[in-house]
Amino acid sequence: MKAPILTPLAASLPSTVPFTGPETQERRQGHHFIARLGANESIFGPSPAAIQAMQSAAGQAWMYGDPELHDLKTALAQHHGCQPENIVVGEGIDGLLGYLARLMVQPGTPVVTSLGAYPTFNFHVAGYGGTLHRAPYKGDHEDPQALLDLARQTGARLLYLANPDNPMGSHHPGQAIQDLVAQLPPETLLVLDEAYIDLAPDGTAPEIPADTPNLIRFRTFSKAHGLAGLRVGYAITSAPLATAFDKVRNHFGVGRIAQAGALAALADQAYLAEVRGKVATARNRLAGIAKTNGLIPLPSATNFITMDCTRDGDYARRVLQHLTAQGIFVRMPGVAPLDRCIRVSLGDEPSLAAFETALPHALKAAL
Amino acid sequence: MKAPILTPLAASLPSTVPFTGPETQERRQGHHFIARLGANESIFGPSPAAIQAMQSAAGQAWMYGDPELHDLKTALAQHHGCQPENIVVGEGIDGLLGYLARLMVQPGTPVVTSLGAYPTFNFHVAGYGGTLHRAPYKGDHEDPQALLDLARQTGARLLYLANPDNPMGSHHPGQAIQDLVAQLPPETLLVLDEAYIDLAPDGTAPEIPADTPNLIRFRTFSKAHGLAGLRVGYAITSAPLATAFDKVRNHFGVGRIAQAGALAALADQAYLAEVRGKVATARNRLAGIAKTNGLIPLPSATNFITMDCTRDGDYARRVLQHLTAQGIFVRMPGVAPLDRCIRVSLGDEPSLAAFETALPHALKAAL
Repeated sequence: MKAPILTPLAASLPSTVPFTGPETQERRQGHHFIARLGANESIFGPSPAAIQAMQSAAGQAWMYGDPELHDLKTALAQHHGCQPENIVVGEGIDGLLGYLARLMVQPGTPVVTSLGAYPTFNFHVAGYGGTLHRAPYKGDHEDPQALLDLARQTGARLLYLANPDNPMGSHHPGQAIQDLVAQLPPETLLVLDEAYIDLAPDGTAPEIPADTPNLIRFRTFSKAHGLAGLRVGYAITSAPLATAFDKVRNHFGVGRIAQAGALAALADQAYLAEVRGKVATARNRLAGIAKTNGLIPLPSATNFITMDCTRDGDYARRVLQHLTAQGIFVRMPGVAPLDRCIRVSLGDEPSLAAFETALPHALKAAL
Repeated sequence: MKAPILTPLAASLPSTVPFTGPETQERRQGHHFIARLGANESIFGPSPAAIQAMQSAAGQAWMYGDPELHDLKTALAQHHGCQPENIVVGEGIDGLLGYLARLMVQPGTPVVTSLGAYPTFNFHVAGYGGTLHRAPYKGDHEDPQALLDLARQTGARLLYLANPDNPMGSHHPGQAIQDLVAQLPPETLLVLDEAYIDLAPDGTAPEIPADTPNLIRFRTFSKAHGLAGLRVGYAITSAPLATAFDKVRNHFGVGRIAQAGALAALADQAYLAEVRGKVATARNRLAGIAKTNGLIPLPSATNFITMDCTRDGDYARRVLQHLTAQGIFVRMPGVAPLDRCIRVSLGDEPSLAAFETALPHALKAAL
């Protein structure tokens, strides 16, 4: 009797968590956060119609969800002007990124992303043995030209770009994405993470047909729709690639309540518009708090504001620690020079007021 | 611009669905089933406390679930008399089987299961390129000795056994599992699928410490707990193997409503006892219907009864087709000689009455 034998690849991987949850921090520090502003969740909550749909579905949870997700895929296709065959639904964008990596990455496969971009994408690529190549940000933006050059140099199979970007909150106009797709090397698929697109200015989403073979776009109900805890993301891509997910996905992985909630949220576009309005207001309020305290709020096309603390990463990390100690959950970019910033999710007025109270103390303590 | 390039392994896989959902069948036939008795769901539903917990959590679904699943793991560990470090929670047993295959299976890895056992396990093993070796059932039981012999012959890294068994509903006493574990080759991990264990006779669960390194046990909230549509399964295993899942799992994959519902269901053991009573009653009722119609109900330690139609597979398939045509959703084993049977989930009285009405017509039409 000995320990189970992992594959060499699995054995080489760390037992890591891409993000430490706020609950873990709360357990360590022994008290709850008073403001949960670190995970870019939508504190404005989901649509009341979605809440009602989930509550109604709760009593039906003895039934598996439709493994083909017919109704949700049909509604998403209608919403996006494509066919259901162009849609893949999965356990959040995270889950779908994992399936994509499984389909296209094997040991040594070159993959391109930005230095400091979404860690969970890197987690999945590394998890299948891929080789990550990282292009630096250009200022506060991911740099399409640098990413393209790097993809050409490395023969990348995947090129990851988030538009709008996390953790900086910046965005490119849709035309820049269209130009990027047009110039991709023939072996490269653009992995376009549009998690925050519902909160971005008009024109941020590129106008590219769903059946474009070298593009896969990821969307989610976790951000503007306020359903991070429901775990429903989806991809829009060419039908052959969408179908390929059936090779590997957890076919019953998106359950009955999740499908019902997502369907109702999608249908309630009026609520989404309301959230956009609240987000715009909260952005101004939060940017004002930053400015009042001498920080530079970066322009945001998302539900968070990244604030330049105007010193180095050590300073920003101390600011974050002193915010955390006061019960404010925030995060920050992981690498220089982005790590001169802290990243603060938009919140309701009580959350923002708590941040407003805590920030000057944190800045003073961090000096 | 060309089609995305899949890995050779991914390209070799079919875009298959291990099980066609009843919704797909309903769409094809253009009407709803009147009795949903094919997926071994618990028509008795989840605990009212679980429903309430899910409904309360719906409004909180804007928050990600705790990626460490602290509260649920702690409660499960207490329930099972082990440590939280021995528990892995995931997106159903299906999701966890996928992670296990990823950790331990690479192209050519030998894996042993029974001919006719759970297809989704095979889907995951094949999905990572493993080589499946199948031992036949011995009568209506999976055959531990034959599985053991095959594991020794092939050097299997995984040996899958479900106790109680699906699709036959049979079970082995816990002692047989203990004997099997004691005799495993040193390189073999027993994958013990205990999805139906809550409905089995006392003594079916082996008494083996959680830290046993060559055993992983899978449990679920999908069957007796009536939460198939919530997607929460878990594994009990040695701490090193449990920790290894962190290398590959979708860390935020079990959402907030799912965690709340599972926690409340686990706490309501009185309801579970009530379900056991209803299951016992429904088993008798359903066995009686089988007998009245000249079928042989196999003894069941589960929430379904597998009925020997006493002829060959073609006949049983026709019976199933004629049940389906009458609006009765049932399934059947996929391979001979098990496919002389149909598999009927337990139901409430309306469902069983609908089956009772339809069965004699189906048997007659199938002749």
